[in-house]
Amino acid sequence: MTHETAECPVARAVDVIGDRWSLLIVRDAFDGITRFSEFQRNLGLAKNILSARLRELVAHGILEIVPGAGGSAYHQYALTPKGRDLFVILVSLRQWGEEHLFEESEPHSVLLDTQHNRPLRRLEPTDATGRVLDSSEAFVQKVAG
Amino acid sequence: MTHETAECPVARAVDVIGDRWSLLIVRDAFDGITRFSEFQRNLGLAKNILSARLRELVAHGILEIVPGAGGSAYHQYALTPKGRDLFVILVSLRQWGEEHLFEESEPHSVLLDTQHNRPLRRLEPTDATGRVLDSSEAFVQKVAG
Repeated sequence: MTHETAECPVARAVDVIGDRWSLLIVRDAFDGITRFSEFQRNLGLAKNILSARLRELVAHGILEIVPGAGGSAYHQYALTPKGRDLFVILVSLRQWGEEHLFEESEPHSVLLDTQHNRPLRRLEPTDATGRVLDSSEAFVQKVAG
Repeated sequence: MTHETAECPVARAVDVIGDRWSLLIVRDAFDGITRFSEFQRNLGLAKNILSARLRELVAHGILEIVPGAGGSAYHQYALTPKGRDLFVILVSLRQWGEEHLFEESEPHSVLLDTQHNRPLRRLEPTDATGRVLDSSEAFVQKVAG
């Protein structure tokens, strides 16, 4: 079952990337990984599954295949603009994970900005004027049927 | 395979919520759905799968079971504070979906703030000073091994 025709953008989004491996492949692509063998080593994923996930990400226009660097016979995978726009989703997943899924004493990787080497600011939903909203201050308006 | 012990907060987060149905259950909970039968009707999901996903979300402390309203025999599901903190992730999924997964002419549901009835501002990662960053201006610092 898919939500390809759903009127809810969340449903369509999870249809395309709501899979553990797809999200972790995209994370690795942001970390600079481009080659099949690197994804495989980093994710510890069976080749056939990795292959299928990469194919789906390419079909969805999130990754694209580019020629191997320096004339290598092995092609590489690069994020498209649509794929790079997933950055904010990965940041939101990271920040929630940092806050809720680690003990005080447990070390975790951190995302720093290249200019100051400091953690990013916490993402917060805001209204059109910039006021921070909590979930009770927003509602979904469905499409008229 | 799980990433329960991963040092990457993204990996732990997708482990907990990186499943199509879990994210859509959480979305519905934000929309005010509380009862098993309502989740089932809205998601069109087999009872045994819905039941398993709800149990996992409760086990992870994202949903909690509360007594049925008005003395009803049927218990209900409510987001915990940890669950409500997923709001920003759902907003980011929605905004990416709105931007990339709909044709111009295709209607979709919208998320509005209750005060002005206007769409939320687009989420953007920013550095500690508030400057908007793109993905090339941030890097993951791994935990020293």
